[in-house]
Amino acid sequence: MSIRVGVNGYGTIGKRVAYAISKQDDMKVSGVIKHTPDFEARFAAERGFDVYVTGEDRLSKFEKAGIKVKGTKEDLFGKVDVVVDATPEGIGEENKKNIYEPRKLSAIFEGGEEPYVADTSFVAQVNYVEALGKKYVRCVSCNTTGIVRILNALDNGFKVKKARVFLARRATDPHEIKKGPINAIVPDPVSIPSHHGPDAQTVLKNMDITTLAIKVPTTIMHLHAINVEVAKSATAKDVIDILNQTPRMMLLHSGEGIHSTAGIIEYARELGRYRYDLYENIIWEDSISANKNEIYLYQAIHQEADVVPENVDAIRAMFQLEKDPIKSIRKTDKSLGIKTPS
Amino acid sequence: MSIRVGVNGYGTIGKRVAYAISKQDDMKVSGVIKHTPDFEARFAAERGFDVYVTGEDRLSKFEKAGIKVKGTKEDLFGKVDVVVDATPEGIGEENKKNIYEPRKLSAIFEGGEEPYVADTSFVAQVNYVEALGKKYVRCVSCNTTGIVRILNALDNGFKVKKARVFLARRATDPHEIKKGPINAIVPDPVSIPSHHGPDAQTVLKNMDITTLAIKVPTTIMHLHAINVEVAKSATAKDVIDILNQTPRMMLLHSGEGIHSTAGIIEYARELGRYRYDLYENIIWEDSISANKNEIYLYQAIHQEADVVPENVDAIRAMFQLEKDPIKSIRKTDKSLGIKTPS
Repeated sequence: MSIRVGVNGYGTIGKRVAYAISKQDDMKVSGVIKHTPDFEARFAAERGFDVYVTGEDRLSKFEKAGIKVKGTKEDLFGKVDVVVDATPEGIGEENKKNIYEPRKLSAIFEGGEEPYVADTSFVAQVNYVEALGKKYVRCVSCNTTGIVRILNALDNGFKVKKARVFLARRATDPHEIKKGPINAIVPDPVSIPSHHGPDAQTVLKNMDITTLAIKVPTTIMHLHAINVEVAKSATAKDVIDILNQTPRMMLLHSGEGIHSTAGIIEYARELGRYRYDLYENIIWEDSISANKNEIYLYQAIHQEADVVPENVDAIRAMFQLEKDPIKSIRKTDKSLGIKTPS
Repeated sequence: MSIRVGVNGYGTIGKRVAYAISKQDDMKVSGVIKHTPDFEARFAAERGFDVYVTGEDRLSKFEKAGIKVKGTKEDLFGKVDVVVDATPEGIGEENKKNIYEPRKLSAIFEGGEEPYVADTSFVAQVNYVEALGKKYVRCVSCNTTGIVRILNALDNGFKVKKARVFLARRATDPHEIKKGPINAIVPDPVSIPSHHGPDAQTVLKNMDITTLAIKVPTTIMHLHAINVEVAKSATAKDVIDILNQTPRMMLLHSGEGIHSTAGIIEYARELGRYRYDLYENIIWEDSISANKNEIYLYQAIHQEADVVPENVDAIRAMFQLEKDPIKSIRKTDKSLGIKTPS
């Protein structure tokens, strides 16, 4: 069985999810939907994805740009089992009402949508089983995915009583030129806590999580300072051992010359993955500090990439292609060059 | 009695301290020491400060630049009661050994020096009395000053049991062009905790303080996310009341359009203070969150300016010009346009 996937929106997330799906043997990309005939649309077509446009009126624009188009989005919706909706924030909810529900189409939403749009909010290593057979699943945002993964790992190891997460968010993605700040620190929001705590709680339902978030003038990665109070006393080595056993964690060390998010990205470029994508939580091993029942660490999150494997697993869960979470995670990870713990 | 002050190093801090001292009626700037005949040296002379150079070999350079010089630093040391040492990090310690001690000169050091260089580390509203009659006093760094002020205020109000401070540090000062990062978040250090906690404990000796610090690509202000667990239950209003009664606190509100450190600086420029300096801790009133025995808030620190009034108070304490801390603070604040609570 090969699940037919339509990718609605071929931007930062959509293009990466399409690539990841193309690496699987139990699902395939039936087509991607583009609005603008830009270089990304051209690459999509050249790399073998069938390109569909957002409306009849777009056909001539793509033709003029010399980009081969298979039809409009309506054509694509007629021949897929599930849509990965990677449209801008809020559009997914409208699409559900106007397109997916009337057509009885399954759909995956991204973290920009409200939780209620889906039957379950999803991070594979935490609640894969909840998504089995579900029609609508929401892959939580990049930050929330990163927070949920690490807090769940620490909870498994040491039972988290209270979590405090301070997020220094990248202001915008590398290719963006219209957003700021250029020279400011922006508490976003000024009010405390930020929405990331409640969002993480859509997956980690019973954990006490407080989050604070600022935006800073950088484009490449988010950084999280994690603080947890735990029930079970831990040493730094205990924490390292747990993280080494957890999927989608990459431990790096400043002793290897990795001193910043820029150092991590340089490392990622050496790795040679497509678009230098980092699907894992990147944790500075030498930041891990455990003192009695309190743990601190720094992790960095590649905002463009960490949710990508989650989308693949979500499809597998929704169509029950695999009922065992770790088997799906391993399969996804192997296809993307992610090291899964044995 | 007018204390004669020499300012050794007329850079970011030195020039501001010289300005602040020039506004007092119980002390005066006998001269400032400059190494380079740059625009700052020219302004110093034009604004009426006597300029001394770091060595005989510098005299001709200043002459060539047309900047009037009174002599070398040795000449200045012979006619002052105290030196404010605002030289680069680590030089103060050498100066103590080679100059101030042999000459039996009192000195104030800045936060770049190690604590042991002085008899006491100093933040006026916390331990003014400790500095009474001392020969060597260290005004702690901009970040530490900001942390100590706020934690002391919260301790006075609610008894701090544990403090966690996350610092997002401005990478460098506005005029610097050789330092970065331009596009990275730098945990500095990667290891947790950072040195700011122990440094704050040189003043708040018995408080449990954990600090984490990152550097981000901005030049204008530091931002601190403050978290304290307190013995006495508090509401946000209780916290606001306490801060309004605390010297050198300025509460601003995002509802007035102040959404970032850049917004704060724009506000400071409207205030019209010299060099738009903010001597206060700037606290977002609407960030203050109190839940049972836990308080959170955001504050921003103008790294170039917040230690300036502390230097003035330190001189007053060292020479016992005033024994009552709040009277010295009020006097300093009035001279600099800072609103002191009544």
